[in-house]
Amino acid sequence: MDTTPFERHESQVRGYCRAYPTVFASASNAHQVDEDGKRYIDFFAGAGVLNFGHNDPAMKEAIIAFLQADGVAHSLDTHTTAKRDFIERFHEVVLAPRGMDHRMQFMGPTGSNAVEAALKLARRTTGRREVVAFTHGFHGMTLGSLAATANDAFRQWAGVPLENVVRLPFETAPGGAEALEAYRAALQDPSSGLRPPAAFLVETVQAEGGVNVASAEWLVRVQEVAHEVGALLVVDDIQAGIGRTGSYFSFDGMGLDPDIIVLAKGLGGFGTPIAMTLNRPEVDDHWAPGAHTGTFRGQGISFTAGRVALDHFTDDRLMSAVRAKGEVMASRLSELARTLGDERWEVRGRGMMQALDTGDGDLAREVQREAFERGLLIGPCGPEGRVLKLIPPLTIEDEVLAEGLDLLEQALAAAGGR
Amino acid sequence: MDTTPFERHESQVRGYCRAYPTVFASASNAHQVDEDGKRYIDFFAGAGVLNFGHNDPAMKEAIIAFLQADGVAHSLDTHTTAKRDFIERFHEVVLAPRGMDHRMQFMGPTGSNAVEAALKLARRTTGRREVVAFTHGFHGMTLGSLAATANDAFRQWAGVPLENVVRLPFETAPGGAEALEAYRAALQDPSSGLRPPAAFLVETVQAEGGVNVASAEWLVRVQEVAHEVGALLVVDDIQAGIGRTGSYFSFDGMGLDPDIIVLAKGLGGFGTPIAMTLNRPEVDDHWAPGAHTGTFRGQGISFTAGRVALDHFTDDRLMSAVRAKGEVMASRLSELARTLGDERWEVRGRGMMQALDTGDGDLAREVQREAFERGLLIGPCGPEGRVLKLIPPLTIEDEVLAEGLDLLEQALAAAGGR
Amino acid sequence: MDTTPFERHESQVRGYCRAYPTVFASASNAHQVDEDGKRYIDFFAGAGVLNFGHNDPAMKEAIIAFLQADGVAHSLDTHTTAKRDFIERFHEVVLAPRGMDHRMQFMGPTGSNAVEAALKLARRTTGRREVVAFTHGFHGMTLGSLAATANDAFRQWAGVPLENVVRLPFETAPGGAEALEAYRAALQDPSSGLRPPAAFLVETVQAEGGVNVASAEWLVRVQEVAHEVGALLVVDDIQAGIGRTGSYFSFDGMGLDPDIIVLAKGLGGFGTPIAMTLNRPEVDDHWAPGAHTGTFRGQGISFTAGRVALDHFTDDRLMSAVRAKGEVMASRLSELARTLGDERWEVRGRGMMQALDTGDGDLAREVQREAFERGLLIGPCGPEGRVLKLIPPLTIEDEVLAEGLDLLEQALAAAGGR
Amino acid sequence: MDTTPFERHESQVRGYCRAYPTVFASASNAHQVDEDGKRYIDFFAGAGVLNFGHNDPAMKEAIIAFLQADGVAHSLDTHTTAKRDFIERFHEVVLAPRGMDHRMQFMGPTGSNAVEAALKLARRTTGRREVVAFTHGFHGMTLGSLAATANDAFRQWAGVPLENVVRLPFETAPGGAEALEAYRAALQDPSSGLRPPAAFLVETVQAEGGVNVASAEWLVRVQEVAHEVGALLVVDDIQAGIGRTGSYFSFDGMGLDPDIIVLAKGLGGFGTPIAMTLNRPEVDDHWAPGAHTGTFRGQGISFTAGRVALDHFTDDRLMSAVRAKGEVMASRLSELARTLGDERWEVRGRGMMQALDTGDGDLAREVQREAFERGLLIGPCGPEGRVLKLIPPLTIEDEVLAEGLDLLEQALAAAGGR
Repeated sequence: MDTTPFERHESQVRGYCRAYPTVFASASNAHQVDEDGKRYIDFFAGAGVLNFGHNDPAMKEAIIAFLQADGVAHSLDTHTTAKRDFIERFHEVVLAPRGMDHRMQFMGPTGSNAVEAALKLARRTTGRREVVAFTHGFHGMTLGSLAATANDAFRQWAGVPLENVVRLPFETAPGGAEALEAYRAALQDPSSGLRPPAAFLVETVQAEGGVNVASAEWLVRVQEVAHEVGALLVVDDIQAGIGRTGSYFSFDGMGLDPDIIVLAKGLGGFGTPIAMTLNRPEVDDHWAPGAHTGTFRGQGISFTAGRVALDHFTDDRLMSAVRAKGEVMASRLSELARTLGDERWEVRGRGMMQALDTGDGDLAREVQREAFERGLLIGPCGPEGRVLKLIPPLTIEDEVLAEGLDLLEQALAAAGGR
Repeated sequence: MDTTPFERHESQVRGYCRAYPTVFASASNAHQVDEDGKRYIDFFAGAGVLNFGHNDPAMKEAIIAFLQADGVAHSLDTHTTAKRDFIERFHEVVLAPRGMDHRMQFMGPTGSNAVEAALKLARRTTGRREVVAFTHGFHGMTLGSLAATANDAFRQWAGVPLENVVRLPFETAPGGAEALEAYRAALQDPSSGLRPPAAFLVETVQAEGGVNVASAEWLVRVQEVAHEVGALLVVDDIQAGIGRTGSYFSFDGMGLDPDIIVLAKGLGGFGTPIAMTLNRPEVDDHWAPGAHTGTFRGQGISFTAGRVALDHFTDDRLMSAVRAKGEVMASRLSELARTLGDERWEVRGRGMMQALDTGDGDLAREVQREAFERGLLIGPCGPEGRVLKLIPPLTIEDEVLAEGLDLLEQALAAAGGR
Repeated sequence: MDTTPFERHESQVRGYCRAYPTVFASASNAHQVDEDGKRYIDFFAGAGVLNFGHNDPAMKEAIIAFLQADGVAHSLDTHTTAKRDFIERFHEVVLAPRGMDHRMQFMGPTGSNAVEAALKLARRTTGRREVVAFTHGFHGMTLGSLAATANDAFRQWAGVPLENVVRLPFETAPGGAEALEAYRAALQDPSSGLRPPAAFLVETVQAEGGVNVASAEWLVRVQEVAHEVGALLVVDDIQAGIGRTGSYFSFDGMGLDPDIIVLAKGLGGFGTPIAMTLNRPEVDDHWAPGAHTGTFRGQGISFTAGRVALDHFTDDRLMSAVRAKGEVMASRLSELARTLGDERWEVRGRGMMQALDTGDGDLAREVQREAFERGLLIGPCGPEGRVLKLIPPLTIEDEVLAEGLDLLEQALAAAGGR
Repeated sequence: MDTTPFERHESQVRGYCRAYPTVFASASNAHQVDEDGKRYIDFFAGAGVLNFGHNDPAMKEAIIAFLQADGVAHSLDTHTTAKRDFIERFHEVVLAPRGMDHRMQFMGPTGSNAVEAALKLARRTTGRREVVAFTHGFHGMTLGSLAATANDAFRQWAGVPLENVVRLPFETAPGGAEALEAYRAALQDPSSGLRPPAAFLVETVQAEGGVNVASAEWLVRVQEVAHEVGALLVVDDIQAGIGRTGSYFSFDGMGLDPDIIVLAKGLGGFGTPIAMTLNRPEVDDHWAPGAHTGTFRGQGISFTAGRVALDHFTDDRLMSAVRAKGEVMASRLSELARTLGDERWEVRGRGMMQALDTGDGDLAREVQREAFERGLLIGPCGPEGRVLKLIPPLTIEDEVLAEGLDLLEQALAAAGGR
């Protein structure tokens, strides 16, 4: 296994490879295999991208067929048959059943770019500058999305002031519920020193922020306040959406009707890049043609695989499996917290995004290391990286899931859980 | 041909599809074919992405083999064999022969994201906030890169002030040469109200800005001034690099030694998304692990196709062809300007980025329309979109190039050239 | 009475003269006389400047003597005898008895300029950018102080974004107490998206903001939080200080020990301009000579009158009178609220800053108009100008105070109090 | 002479007193006397405030009469007889003879505050954010005016980014003339990355910046460019106006017609604080009542003395004397440069603002010290403080002027002029 070329020629900025010191050669559903033939169970799924596993056979077959037919791999925002197929299928499977008439906007294929587009549109629609974002929120790395991201470890790298964002505590942070009401009250008051915002940008489950789960009640209240003050509700569903929590959108059934929904990660199905916002038509009408462009916004391979991925949402089979496996994960984590943890340990999550907050970043990193050695890939998140977040492919086999949880238990024990 | 799904379900922001009202079904080298079977010669190459044509057979074969072997399509910044192969090959073909020891940094796969990363790194390295960018420069759509982009049609969509950029006239703009010297003089003066910048961000040929070609002398002077004031030289080679001007980097042989080079577009070879900066090691050392992240920064398909694309640079065959075809393009455009144009018409370019500045945006759009009807795809750029930019695949066959130039002549004549 | 020259030649920005449509010719203690000889009782005292009344005989005599001796009227920050006398007397009467070793800084003679200086010093001392200010706070009109001012009617005139201020609700605003604790909690959290502030800038009684009175407990808590997060406590005592609330500083006896205290208005005694900050030595040491300059910072007439004004604070006579008259004012207002008001009417205040919040800006303006006609000058403040603030000279005679309160009752009744 | 109280109790920020280590007790026309009886000739005039000398007898008499009549010393912006007398006299003496119908706006009595008001009004009038200011310009210390000030020694103390100002080289700086034209050209170009500014803020003679004298031609060109791009011309005449250069406004006779003129310093005549803008009516109409307020904006003493000062402008006696004495100063300085200086020495100025640029800050400070010891007060200015600026009272007697110039010669020789 030769990692020298990376050490010699790749930037110091590289990160995950330091926690996973091997060279991966192939991957299949919830397994990755390194070039020495060692197998790993993947509880990280490419940071929540590979909801349908690595190298899903149906998608692979569709991509190969697309390539062999000389499909248009790169199209900017011209019309292609691959794109049309994706758009029609997305409407049929996702939007129409929910009675949604949101319009699909494609942009540079990163979640960060989609957040940037959403904020531009919200600011243009309202003619306002500031956007409300929440503590522990994660929305990306470019200056517009980074301004909305809370984590100081990322923010300090901007090198310039990050402005035009009002920060409120998320529901689960100290003072979260009261702060929303106090902010609302202040906006009624012309001597508050505050101007009404363009949008409230919120995740229903803060994934990178530590798997903080908002209640439906609070989210609805955010929506009410937003609309009361003439602001848009923008839901960043990049990591929690596309089936992760047991329904296509993470907010299905909550009574939310976001003005803009931001999707990326799992949308391409195969790990191929794509990003999309869903814009309510009255909002979308504020765009002029070409107002937000991007070279790689028309990706034929991503459209092709992403279209196949939508087959998972034509019936409830995958989603009910997600809910069931999510319960398995949660109950196993609770048991581990009880048997190996102390009073700080906490289990949180929805669907197949479940987390064990160990309250101790050093411990979590040690667990990650022990797990890696045993053949399990997990990624810590949250404050000081103290939260072990489990986001395996939604398609993981029950026995692989169980095996992974066993490895996690061993790693926890080895790392010095009680 | 059914464009209804686009009109119903896609955002108003869509742009190019309005100029090319058809649905493309397949593509091969310099041709695209719509679903009615009509063929188009592609003088736009996906906005300068498809330097090696659509569906290059060698790349296609490599991608299919990669898929069939269950290669790791999505890897964040973990090590994979596909990524290692790319890195080693890039070093061998591009860096080593030039004696360069720059480090490769991968990020969210858009040029905009790479510019954002470059600016973060420049600001961190120098501890300074402001960046010099030039009139007519184009660097992307996210707030950090948009602040450096000059075009007001894009800037107005930010919805917030775009700060921390000092704007100087590009060499070819009025006062360009003097302004650089006046700025240099002002930086020596503690009562100038100016602080030294973190970087000079420059394109050697401003592609979107209207195919404005900087001289080697001016670029070297920019580098001298940058280093004299303790700033970095950052070359945005996203559109002009990777062979477009007749050499791998657009600045090869000019005596430039940029601190950071920004690449994207053609780097993936096949139109698949990838972006990379090349950071001088002393600069790169300012990064901390994970300081700039991004979900889609590890793209196996792009690494695979991009590695194959590098085969074009192991000898001078493609580059000498580019120079020869570039001359054909330039001389034909000059002839057209002479026979069909007026005194405003001007031909500019380097290698296979050649342009006809008609001085008239309405005319240029009409030419684009007439060309489309005749089966030729071109894209106007520059102020008011008055510049017809020709950027066919570098691999276009001589006879297809000639045929395309004939179609252009017809379109110009039909649109009312003299 | 000829107001034509004002209408012809003075800017549209003029304000108070529209509410008091006459031309004042002379003034003495709590009376002003217009050029038609009509007398007015002054419950406004030049917006809280004339704590010692108009044309105090002792100050007037001292100024005339100073002028006749060719005293140095304008000295920048050179040493003069008049300035030394002021400094020594201020130390002897105010600082020494309180065991304070704060240093006196003089600047351009406006409260706004003093706030600007205080914020510069706080930012330099801490190396931080943001300053916490409170809803309904008023701190001035120049861009630095205006950023801290809450009132949107003033802020909208900046014409540029007002940045670098974090806004928290004042104690008396909805959510006030909780918000301080939530902010404190967030600052402990590296994923809050917040950085620690340079200072907390607070008024103990928000005068322009509507006579909102903070409790000692809350102010002490602000001080604790400030110091806990490494920020300075800056008290803006411009309107509430210098005897107005019954003690020299408005926070005397509260257990506060501000790092910077901002004074202006009443400090010159006679209505002549002066502004001063009191800087704790460890903080003051961060200044370099000449770091904050200003042409009119050395005013001999203001030093002379201001020195005489300090004679009022060598014993408790004036302060005990202030407390007694303040009680008369408060109890009379309460009676008026009970007899003439509705459930929205509220009486608030400390010492001789007492206010009747009518909850109705139109009513308050009508009361002002009726009062003016009857020979009483009052100024509404607070949200929509609905709060009638009474700030007569501290030296007002008991019978004039009573007469003024009678006139107020008549005006309230005439304006349609119940 | 006891300077201990200053050292003990005054802020470290104090500046001029360090260069003039004595305590001044009295002053009369161009002389100051310290408490030990030593006399100093004043070539600094309170930083250009005391155009009519210290303790002018006529003004002193008028102030005493005003005080004895219980005039309204402090009036905010209510009408007073003293203010009316000033306004009428200013109109009669200054505006009417020039056919000007500008409106007078009073604000907090500092030049900085007047600049802040002017910029607010310019931004509101045009609906634009950015203001053009020039290298070496000095406009004040509060954040809005400091953003326009060029000197980095002052700017660094802001502690926050200073934004919304575009910096162009002043006429006399390298590239000055060309830069104005290049900026004008760029504003015509929608891809320049520049938006048109709200105003051009300019001094005709940069006083603090080093006595840089603009030509009438350049100033007229600034006005033309401003109006061509829809921006206002704002002339900061705080130090160069009110007779200093030999006419009331420093730009009289140049063909300029500024939209806003900023005055302060000498306007009050006696060194008492006042500031005023003169707003063209169409511009002034953009103000709403009370949009820019300030406690000390109605100063009876300043109105009274300032009205008397206007008597100097009813005939040409003072102004012709200024021109004559200015020539004496200039020719003596040229002689000193020739006999004592080297090739770097340069004499610059207009009227009675004349300067010797020694090219050496250490030398200039040494000259200041030697002059002080000999009984002459002068203040260095410009880059590194290398420019000796002479701004005696306009009313200085010929023989005192001569005596002061002799002392300057001795100081220069002693400090090591050649």
